Amino acid sequence: MSTVQALPATRRRRQGKYTFYLENPPLIAGIAAVGGPVEGAGPMGAGLDHVYNDNLLGQKSWEQAEVRMMCDAVHLCCRKTGIPLQQVDILFASDLLNQIVTSSYAARDLDIPYVGLFGACSGMSEGLGLAAMAVDGGYADTVVVAVSSHHLTAERQYRFPTEFAGQRPPTAQWTATGSTAVILANRKAGDGVVGITHVTFGRVIDASLKNPYDMGSAMAPAAVDTILRHFKDTGRSFSDYDVVATGDLARVGHPIAAEMLQEAGYDPGDRFIDCGILLYDPNRQDVHAGGSGCACSGIVLASDLYPRLRRGELKRVLLVATGSLHSKITIQQKESMPGIAHAVALERMDA
Amino acid sequence: MSTVQALPATRRRRQGKYTFYLENPPLIAGIAAVGGPVEGAGPMGAGLDHVYNDNLLGQKSWEQAEVRMMCDAVHLCCRKTGIPLQQVDILFASDLLNQIVTSSYAARDLDIPYVGLFGACSGMSEGLGLAAMAVDGGYADTVVVAVSSHHLTAERQYRFPTEFAGQRPPTAQWTATGSTAVILANRKAGDGVVGITHVTFGRVIDASLKNPYDMGSAMAPAAVDTILRHFKDTGRSFSDYDVVATGDLARVGHPIAAEMLQEAGYDPGDRFIDCGILLYDPNRQDVHAGGSGCACSGIVLASDLYPRLRRGELKRVLLVATGSLHSKITIQQKESMPGIAHAVALERMDA
Repeated sequence: MSTVQALPATRRRRQGKYTFYLENPPLIAGIAAVGGPVEGAGPMGAGLDHVYNDNLLGQKSWEQAEVRMMCDAVHLCCRKTGIPLQQVDILFASDLLNQIVTSSYAARDLDIPYVGLFGACSGMSEGLGLAAMAVDGGYADTVVVAVSSHHLTAERQYRFPTEFAGQRPPTAQWTATGSTAVILANRKAGDGVVGITHVTFGRVIDASLKNPYDMGSAMAPAAVDTILRHFKDTGRSFSDYDVVATGDLARVGHPIAAEMLQEAGYDPGDRFIDCGILLYDPNRQDVHAGGSGCACSGIVLASDLYPRLRRGELKRVLLVATGSLHSKITIQQKESMPGIAHAVALERMDA
Repeated sequence: MSTVQALPATRRRRQGKYTFYLENPPLIAGIAAVGGPVEGAGPMGAGLDHVYNDNLLGQKSWEQAEVRMMCDAVHLCCRKTGIPLQQVDILFASDLLNQIVTSSYAARDLDIPYVGLFGACSGMSEGLGLAAMAVDGGYADTVVVAVSSHHLTAERQYRFPTEFAGQRPPTAQWTATGSTAVILANRKAGDGVVGITHVTFGRVIDASLKNPYDMGSAMAPAAVDTILRHFKDTGRSFSDYDVVATGDLARVGHPIAAEMLQEAGYDPGDRFIDCGILLYDPNRQDVHAGGSGCACSGIVLASDLYPRLRRGELKRVLLVATGSLHSKITIQQKESMPGIAHAVALERMDA
C-alpha cells in the first residue's frame, strides 16, 4: 500500500474558480441525432441522421420508443465514426423520465459500463463535461454521451395525460422528440477536428418562479450565472466565441438572459442564440415559446453547430444547455423551480 | 488555437478493460451521516452524526425533509473536516426521487456547482467514482459526494400512498431514511488517511425479473458482474480486501450473489457482506429482507466501514453499491428490472 502524498503529482486542470481546463482536449469523433416527425419537418430536419415516421417506432409504448431512439442514436454514431460499440469504454446518459429509465434501459441493451446522469434538459453539456474529464484525465479512451427526450413521454409525466389535450399557454415550450449521441476520443478517430477545451459546471439558481409553463424565465438566470462565471474564469467574452448557445430558454427566456447579460456589462449580440428557438419554425410549427428537452440542444448541436464547426465555418462554440430541476411533486407542493446550466467550450483544434 | 494531437500526453489511468486507477488516490477528508428514528435505533445508530426524532424534521412535507437531511449531512461533513462549504468545488449528488429533486433542491441551498446523478441505490459509489476522477484528474481540489433516501418519500413514489398501509411480502426491503456526505480532497485535510484507489463502473444487467418487491434478486447479478470485472481488471480477489460490501442486496439477494460468485470460482466467505443486511436488526426491527435506498450503503459506510478503515481495523474495502433501475411506469408496462452496481476501492494510504 502506498503512502499519503501531501500534494498530488497530477497537473492542476482548473482555470479560475469554477472552470475545468482540458489539457488534451478530447476530440469529437462524431455525432449522430435522430428525431421525430415534428423535428424532422423543422429547420434542423435536414441535419438529422434519421427521422422517424411516427412517435411510437413500432414499440408498445412511447417510453419504449424513447429507449429505441437512444439506442439508434448510439449505434448510428458508432457507424458514422467507425468505432465499434464494444470499444467504447463508458456511456454517460441522461433523459427526463422518472428514474431516467430511457438511459438505463438503453444502457441495458448497449451493454457497456454506464454512468446515469440527471440535469433535466441540461443533460447534453453535463454529459459532455463529465465525459471530457474522463477522456482527458486518462480514465477512458473512448466514451459516448447520449441524451434523449420524447414529447409524449414528457408531456404525460410532467403535465397531463396526453388524451386530456389540455390547452397550453403561449409561454409553454414543446419537448423535443429525439436523441443525440456524441463519441469523444483521446485520439484522432472519425471526424476528430473539434475538441472540448473547457467545462464550467453550473450552480443551481432559483429565481422564485413557480409557473411550470414558463421554464424559460426560470432557467434564464442560471444560464447567465454560468456564462458569467465561465467568462470570468477564462478571461473570455462573447467576442471569443462565434456562437454562445443556450439550451432551451426559448422565445420567452432567451431575451431575459440577453438583457441580464447586458446589465452585467456584456454585449451578447447575434452570437448569443438559443437551441429552443432554432429547433422549430414558429411560422409553420405551433410550438408556443419554442423547443425544450434534452434532445433540443442535442439536435441543434448535431444538426447545425457541430457540422459548422467541422466545416470550419465556426471556430469556437460555447454550448450552455439549461435545465429546470423541478418535478411534478415539487410544483404540487408549491416549491419554486430551480434552474441549472452547464457550459462546454467546443473548438476546432486545427486552426 | 492548438493543433490536433495524435495521442495525449496524459498518463493512462486505466487497469484492464473497465477499471480506473487513481494515480494520486483522492483522500477522504471526512464523512457525515444523518438518519431517521428507525436507522438511529438500529445497529448503525451509534455511528450516525445526527438522528432525527421524526421523519418530517419540522418541514411541511417528507420531500422537503429529505432536502433538509442532505443539506444537514453536507454541512456536518464540512464542520467535521474543517473545510468551509465555499471551498468545495463541486457537489456530486443523487437520490431516488423523480427528477432527483432532493439533490437539486439541496444544491440550490448549498450554492456550489452541482452535478446531478442517478443510479438508484448505487448513488454512493457512482458519486464517489466520478468525484475521485475529478480530484485525481486535477479538475477539482475538494469535492463533496452526497446521497439521500427517505422511507416515506420513496414508499409513496415507488409503491402505494403511505396511508394505504399495504402489506409487503417478506422479500421486500425497507428504504432507509438518511443522508451521507463524503468530502474528498487532493491533499491531507480532515481525517485524510483513506484514499480511493480504483473505480469500476457497472454495466446494466437484467435477469428478466419483474417483481418490484424483490429488488435484491434483480440486483444480485449486476453486483456479481461488477465484482468479477473488478477482480479480473485488477488481478485482485476477495483475499485482497478485508471487506467487499454490496449496497442493498439484503437477505434475499446477497446469498444469491454469494452463490453466483462461488460458481464463478471465488470463495466470498465472511468478507462478503451487505449493507442492507447490516443496517437494521432483524430481531428488533421489522424491515422484511433488509435495508435499501441510497442512504443504506451511505450510512453503513459512514457508521461502520469508514470508521474501521480510519482506525486501521480494515485496510482495504470494496464498496459495491447496487441499484435497481426500474420506475413505476416500467413496472406497469411489464418491463423487467435492470440492475447496476458500481465498485469503489477504499484503502488506508499510510499502511
